[in-house]
Amino acid sequence: MAHLREFSLAEAIAVLTRTPTTVNALLRGLPNAWVRTNEGKDTWSAFDIIGHLIVGERTDWMPRVRIILENGEARPFDPFDRFAQVKESQGKSLEQLLDDFTRLRMENLAALQALNLQQEDLTRRGKHPALGVVTLAQLVATWAVHDLTHVHQLSRVMAHRYRDAVGPWSAYLGVLQCGGHSAP
Amino acid sequence: MAHLREFSLAEAIAVLTRTPTTVNALLRGLPNAWVRTNEGKDTWSAFDIIGHLIVGERTDWMPRVRIILENGEARPFDPFDRFAQVKESQGKSLEQLLDDFTRLRMENLAALQALNLQQEDLTRRGKHPALGVVTLAQLVATWAVHDLTHVHQLSRVMAHRYRDAVGPWSAYLGVLQCGGHSAP
Repeated sequence: MAHLREFSLAEAIAVLTRTPTTVNALLRGLPNAWVRTNEGKDTWSAFDIIGHLIVGERTDWMPRVRIILENGEARPFDPFDRFAQVKESQGKSLEQLLDDFTRLRMENLAALQALNLQQEDLTRRGKHPALGVVTLAQLVATWAVHDLTHVHQLSRVMAHRYRDAVGPWSAYLGVLQCGGHSAP
Repeated sequence: MAHLREFSLAEAIAVLTRTPTTVNALLRGLPNAWVRTNEGKDTWSAFDIIGHLIVGERTDWMPRVRIILENGEARPFDPFDRFAQVKESQGKSLEQLLDDFTRLRMENLAALQALNLQQEDLTRRGKHPALGVVTLAQLVATWAVHDLTHVHQLSRVMAHRYRDAVGPWSAYLGVLQCGGHSAP
């Protein structure tokens, strides 16, 4: 399987471990103007993005790992609710969300490592409700790249706020040319 | 001036202060496979990007602030060498580069704050060799968005490595749709 050439569980975990500290470093203590800004109607702020990462920890990644190991392709994954954070984050502070995300991620990585997965487990298959057959390796790789997608989105959402403030330099600043690929 | 509506020096400094901790959290201790991967011929790895951020601290941001304050539009900024890091980073480890960047950024922010800039200083003008007249506020806003451009690029360069590993999920992962706007 070509995709296993680049993938290793230890290297994926190296990325997954660093995401809580990365988003804490980027966001904790920032003025609200940065945390609550978005890219316009029906787009996400940093606050919304951390809420979305929490929902993923609760309902997506490790639950799907377990479905693959316990049921294989026989039981499709539950669909993921991309808007659950709107309700779940209500009334919380960004700092609470960062704490929740950090705790849940650490618990999930401990659970993943406790499974003591072997190389042959990585080819075990599950069924995505829309994408069809996927492997355990693809699921864990996606977990890591999903983190990177939202770090990418966080930097873009924040930069958008200074789109006018940078004046003529906007032509040179790559993040301002990014149309956004993490909709909404 | 419209761009001053969103800009405040304190809020720009809030972003600039967090970039060293953010890139340290994202990169320090990662396996070399993540740190040295790039997006293909003539593109940058995480190692190259941190080297580029160091060159900016040495030769670009604060030197240009000082040129504006001392010479205004009379003396255009020195052009920025976007490839200086190739030579300057040679033989160093990523950890050395992260230490250098962190130290230089902290020194530069201390120097910026020691200038005790007032609101009226933010409209002072300088001359960019290619872009023409720019203001001090635009320069500092650009410094912050330049950081965000490279956080955006770091997440994209790393995600590229798992482009195949994620299998059919690639369609859902925004960072993999990003054509790259931070060339090279």
